[in-house]
Amino acid sequence: MSKRPLILVTNDDGITAPGIRALISVMNTIGDVVVVAPDSPQSGMGHAITVNSTLHIEKVSIDGKQTEYSCSGTPADCVKLAVREILDRTPDLCVSGINHGSNSSINVIYSGTMSAALEAGIEGIPAIGFSLLDYNWNANFEHCKSFIKTITKQVLAHGLPDGVVLNVNLPNLDRKDVKGIKICRQARANWVEEFDKRTNPMGRDYYWLAGKFVNMDNGEDTDEWALEHGYVSVVPVQFDLTAHHAIQKLNTWKLN
Amino acid sequence: MSKRPLILVTNDDGITAPGIRALISVMNTIGDVVVVAPDSPQSGMGHAITVNSTLHIEKVSIDGKQTEYSCSGTPADCVKLAVREILDRTPDLCVSGINHGSNSSINVIYSGTMSAALEAGIEGIPAIGFSLLDYNWNANFEHCKSFIKTITKQVLAHGLPDGVVLNVNLPNLDRKDVKGIKICRQARANWVEEFDKRTNPMGRDYYWLAGKFVNMDNGEDTDEWALEHGYVSVVPVQFDLTAHHAIQKLNTWKLN
Repeated sequence: MSKRPLILVTNDDGITAPGIRALISVMNTIGDVVVVAPDSPQSGMGHAITVNSTLHIEKVSIDGKQTEYSCSGTPADCVKLAVREILDRTPDLCVSGINHGSNSSINVIYSGTMSAALEAGIEGIPAIGFSLLDYNWNANFEHCKSFIKTITKQVLAHGLPDGVVLNVNLPNLDRKDVKGIKICRQARANWVEEFDKRTNPMGRDYYWLAGKFVNMDNGEDTDEWALEHGYVSVVPVQFDLTAHHAIQKLNTWKLN
Repeated sequence: MSKRPLILVTNDDGITAPGIRALISVMNTIGDVVVVAPDSPQSGMGHAITVNSTLHIEKVSIDGKQTEYSCSGTPADCVKLAVREILDRTPDLCVSGINHGSNSSINVIYSGTMSAALEAGIEGIPAIGFSLLDYNWNANFEHCKSFIKTITKQVLAHGLPDGVVLNVNLPNLDRKDVKGIKICRQARANWVEEFDKRTNPMGRDYYWLAGKFVNMDNGEDTDEWALEHGYVSVVPVQFDLTAHHAIQKLNTWKLN
């Protein structure tokens, strides 16, 4: 067996997206890479899984030496299929991204990129989701690479606490303007939707989801603060959603 | 303005599912009900939102006096559309379900039912997701009604802590065999997938997602324990996913 770590790479923008190609190029310098990623963009899919239709996997060759599979499913499906059907052994690490666009703050809830990382975490695999604050297909990912390498090597060296994965967001700045890496908490923020209502040629109304991101959190320990101030943000994220602090209060209610 | 609370009802099994019809009948005894629910089943959609296609809403009349809209989107879309486009004022409560099947433990991550409740919570609306441990379309929801009424009235009376929604699961038992309502934490559990691999008539492989639920948690304060022992489980769920306990440890890493 190779001493190099086995790294599973996935994303939600699809296997041909420039973001995942950049992530693969970094991971090739660290370990043995297997890519299992969606065959088409899955943005906004949240933690969807495919329960009512079939899944297809196809071995593909896009660039480089790594083994790659394109999959008809969601990011979470890709991780499940990789672990159960494709890989001979449990990977040492799963990385997802680099997403074209932010997954900071409340966006973690809607993020396919992070759902893949969470799915790997549920399987007991150390996992990291990477996102760049630039929605463009032709975004420049070069300045992300050294930060991604640093964070990945620390995760491989230390492991991650049980039940925790990392949500990493990178500011859209020149390399020299990035101030460093900051461990953060998720900012309290929200999308204020402004649906764009239109009428189709048959006279029927329809809507496009639009909206404005609103940060309601003044804390200087949040991912939003870090990104606004030129840092790479790293939020440890958990999939035990229990609000433990609320249990005592609820136990005072008259329920029985 | 009516003194009765305004209650938004949604689900992920679709607006005609028996589970939501049962939930509507309970809510009609408590407040003024507006239904905005998907026009087709959305199970396993996680916290998906519709960003790359259009959304349609149609006013429908199915049973009873309540106002109802069927929507082409996901459960989270339904809540966003209800709050921004349909309702004149912010509802006093959002309830989602009754789901046909469990959303206990790790299922909360994959659950469309709970994604609607979380979306309402993000909007600052007290919210509850209800699920029955019976996947059948023709499941019996009668025994759920008194428990749902009790929990809903307590939420309306006390409100919910900031950033918290409730995940309620009901055992599939006769009313007389249900022992009561228990406040719980999310059990540490997992799905062990066993993909069912088949070959289509053109000779191409495809997969069906199958799997077995495995509870790895021996605690007697979990939702799984409560349900196995005949209780209705209530888990307070949060959408700040930060693993606060991990921040100190990560700050010892060499990142800069």
